[in-house]
Parts: sequence; C-alpha cells; structure tokens
Amino acid sequence: MGTKGAVVGEPPPRSALVTGATGFVGSHLAKRLVRDGWSVHAVVRAACEFPESDEMARVHRYLCDGRVESVIDAVAAAKPDVVFHLASLFIAQHQAADVDRLVESNILFGSQLLEAMAQARVACLVNAGTSWQHFHGPDYDPVNLYAATKQAVTDIIRYYVDACGIRCITLKLFDTYGPDDRRRKLLSLLIQAARTGEPLALSPGEQVMDLIFVEDVVEAFLVASGMLLDGCEPAYQDFAVSGGQRVSLRELVKLCEEIMGARIPVNWGARAYRPREVMVPEWFADGLPGWRPRYSLREGLSRVLLPGAA
Amino acid sequence: MGTKGAVVGEPPPRSALVTGATGFVGSHLAKRLVRDGWSVHAVVRAACEFPESDEMARVHRYLCDGRVESVIDAVAAAKPDVVFHLASLFIAQHQAADVDRLVESNILFGSQLLEAMAQARVACLVNAGTSWQHFHGPDYDPVNLYAATKQAVTDIIRYYVDACGIRCITLKLFDTYGPDDRRRKLLSLLIQAARTGEPLALSPGEQVMDLIFVEDVVEAFLVASGMLLDGCEPAYQDFAVSGGQRVSLRELVKLCEEIMGARIPVNWGARAYRPREVMVPEWFADGLPGWRPRYSLREGLSRVLLPGAA
Repeated sequence: MGTKGAVVGEPPPRSALVTGATGFVGSHLAKRLVRDGWSVHAVVRAACEFPESDEMARVHRYLCDGRVESVIDAVAAAKPDVVFHLASLFIAQHQAADVDRLVESNILFGSQLLEAMAQARVACLVNAGTSWQHFHGPDYDPVNLYAATKQAVTDIIRYYVDACGIRCITLKLFDTYGPDDRRRKLLSLLIQAARTGEPLALSPGEQVMDLIFVEDVVEAFLVASGMLLDGCEPAYQDFAVSGGQRVSLRELVKLCEEIMGARIPVNWGARAYRPREVMVPEWFADGLPGWRPRYSLREGLSRVLLPGAA
Repeated sequence: MGTKGAVVGEPPPRSALVTGATGFVGSHLAKRLVRDGWSVHAVVRAACEFPESDEMARVHRYLCDGRVESVIDAVAAAKPDVVFHLASLFIAQHQAADVDRLVESNILFGSQLLEAMAQARVACLVNAGTSWQHFHGPDYDPVNLYAATKQAVTDIIRYYVDACGIRCITLKLFDTYGPDDRRRKLLSLLIQAARTGEPLALSPGEQVMDLIFVEDVVEAFLVASGMLLDGCEPAYQDFAVSGGQRVSLRELVKLCEEIMGARIPVNWGARAYRPREVMVPEWFADGLPGWRPRYSLREGLSRVLLPGAA
C-alpha cells in the first residue's frame, strides 16, 4: 500500500509499546490499539499468562527477565512511537513481605523502561498513576505504599524528561471497572454474591467511590498519546482521570441490584473500614483537555452486569 | 552504673542504627557516636569491608542479604532510638547497567529500612539527601539519576511518616570532604598529583563548588537527631547542609597549593564538563536550626592536606 493510497485526513498507523498488557486496563488498551490499526508491542514478564483473543494474537511480545538489558532489547526492537506504561503491582494494604515486590514492579521496572526509552530515543510516554497519590488534596499525600511507589517512579521519570528529552503525561486514575476484570474487585464479588446467594461481608459502606469505565480510561490514554505526538508542552504533565460521578458503596450496590433486577445479599459492617480508607475522595484536579467520560455509571455497570449488553 | 550516678544535665546514652557506616560520612558519624557514648549499631551488606579502628570495633554489626526480612531482623534486634540512613550508591553519570544497582541501593534498601522501622516501632530517622535534588532551584529538579533515586526514596519515607508514625529529617548535603575519604574524589586526586608530579586532567575548572567538612556534616546529623528526639514538628522536614563558602574548582586548587606549599600539576580543559555539570549551585534553602559549619574551607582542607594538622 503506497502513501498515495492513504486516505486524506487519516493519520498514518502508529506503533505502541504497552506494559501491563496482560492486566485489566492494559489488555483493553492493547485490543483497542490493534482495532484502531496500531502496531502493538508488549513487554511481558516470563511468568505472565497472555490473554487469548484475536486482537491479542496480533500483539508482538517481548519477554523481560527482571534485568534492565532485557527491557533495553525489547524497546530497541519495538522502537514504538509511544510507550503506554500500565504495568504495576497493586496491593491495597501491604505486608512486610510485599515491600520488595512493590519496589521491583512499580519502581525498578519503570526505571528500566525509561532507561530503555532514552537509549532507543523513544520520546513519548503515557504513564498510569493513581488518585491515591492524593489522599487529602493536591499535594503528594499517599494513601498506601502502592501509591508511594507510583509517586517514586514519577521522580525517576522526571529525571529522564529533564535529561534525556523524554516527554510524559501521567494519568492519575480513579477506580477503574469494566468487563473482563480478572482482579478480585468489588463488582466481581457482587455478581458472585447475587448468583450464589452467599452473603458478601462488606464494610459499613459509607465510603464514596469515583468509578470510571475502562473504555473511557482507554480513550484517555489515546487522547494523551495524541497530545504527546502533537508536541504538547510542558514536557511533563499530569492529569486526573475521573468518572465524574461519585456514589457511596451502599448506593453502588443499590444501583447494581436495580440493573440486575436481583437482590445482592450483603452483610454491611461485617468488615471494618481499612485503616486508611478513602471515605470521600478529596482530590479534584484538572482533567485531560479534550476528554471526558462517555459512559454514565449506569451504562458502564450495565455492560458489566448484563451479559450481552455491550 | 545506676541512674543516681548520672551527671546532672547530661542526657542518658542513646542508641543509634547507622546505615552506610562503611562509607565516608557514615564511618565518621559512627565513630563520633561511639566517642559520645552512644550504643551504635550498623546494618551492612555481606560484601562490605568494615573499616578497622578502636571505635568501629565497638559498633554492633548486622548483615543484610538484600531482602526485607534481614533488615527487619536487624532493626528489631538493635531497637535504636534513632536511625541514621546514609547508605547510598553514588554514581555521577550512570550507564544503563547501573540502573538496577541505583534503584536497589537507594530505593529498595531505604524502603526495607522504613518497613523495618515501622514494624519495630522505631520512630526517628535522619536521612541523607543531596543538594543535587535541586539543579536549578527549590523545586525538585534532579541533576542525575542518583539524585532522582534520592527523591524517590523520600516519597517512600513520606508514606511511612504519614501512615506509621515515623518522624524524619532529611539533610540535603552539598559536596562533602574530609580525612579518610576512600572515594576517588577530587582532593585525593589533587594530593596524588602533587606527590607524583603526574598532571591531573580536569575540566576548564570554572564550576563553583560548595564544600562542607565532614565533621560539620556529622554535627548536623547529631543536631537533627536531637530535634527528632525532642519531638520537633512537622513530622517530615528537610534542610540544606551547606559549607557556606563557594569557590570555583580553579580557586580550590590554588588554595590547596597554598596550604600544601606545593604546585599541583593540572591540565585545565583536558576533560570536558559533564553534560549536566552544576556550574553554580542555584539552590539555597533553610539551614538546620541551631547548626552552622565550624570549619572554614582553609581549616578543613588543612586537616586533609597536612598530615598531623588534626
């Protein structure tokens, strides 16, 4: 296909490298990129199971073994226009034995990735952060060690931005949800409780959540990559990616019951709140320019709760 | 020795755990603490050579093997009043192969130390940072990857401060010097050049340095520990530790020649400046309350350059 055959106004196909492509948001993003005609590469750990689908079969995979050299080789081979860094280890409340894994997954791997980008002169990075870097407001104030590791890797990224010509947008995500979520998170547990009739033990349920549908998150990553490819300034920026609708856990369960037309058995208060539970998200920040969520909570939940609704 | 025998006004002996006790500032600090009557503990890597001296022989040593468990065991056994965290890997200009080591030494080990402090309910931490976290001013702006790892571990520390009741003062050090410096740094090279007559290849030499004598640095660590033990607020603070006298590299060499009464053969300009050379330190910040350097540059250099001057 020569360039003369290109449709006027249609951007040329781009190439992307996705980390965390075996995870929830990462796999949705990788599939979307494939559908949109991108050439998609993924850096994966040897131990990761790669999700099977027609789209995922078209993703080029590079194994990394934990050392910087393997990441350098992968990025040099892929030479993408944009890197989407979504790989991370999420642990809400860590134990002592998790410290090494959190640092290795969330800081060491990110540092290796940036070094590899610098070496290969790959300039554009969209990085996934978390709203939990901001427990009580706009300053750094981590909810948990996971959020602290996300902030720490940002410090490393900023060195590469200053010194090596890399440009980065960090998207700080609120609570993501959507189909094909293999994480053991609330919605899966609610569906299971509704099916089995086995009561689900939850906290008193007054905490307010900011849920964002995965397709909206994927769209935010694409918008951010477009900004970087268009040469946006400054070279480092971050934005909040919020669903825009906040509901308490109790309200969420009610809404799920309505959508499913079924009762969900819950033992409210059978669990305590976490020691540092975010009762009301106190952080509001600039959203990504040119992006806003398209899915209302009801629409998004319907996609998850009603098979065939998509 | 019963408490009745204690001298009025003399504080009781304290116990300290020092990381980096085999390094330059760390070994000076450990020896000073021993001389001042502290019970001194050191966490060391199996591979480290422990400096020999009467004072160092009185330091309790705990081996750590790179995993969090060994650090937890060490801190639990030492149960110090204060932890002085000086261990770090310094690399001015890193190569790709250094990335893993920098993250492991400067972020992973620090994270393990904080987890160990939280577990053992050890609350007071004096942490060594670097002026190079501030290339062009008060905001975070790292000179090199080393400085970025120092900033990153601070974000981890701040989680433990917020969530686990730890209290920390970070001292951001300018360029330290003093006797018994086994690092291959400028002064050692100047002494060697004066002795051998072999010309030393240096940059053009216009960069301005802020040198601080090691005994002044040690005093700053002690003052910071006193503030923490006295319950200073807020729970996280940082301060600059500057020698207060800035000289160009050329002026420094001249001063050394004067003190030694000998010519130091230098090939000025035989090396290029580093890509991100700090030509003039642009960062000025609050110094530690109640502390200021006691050694003029001339006095400090005399201690290094004139054997027997101490």
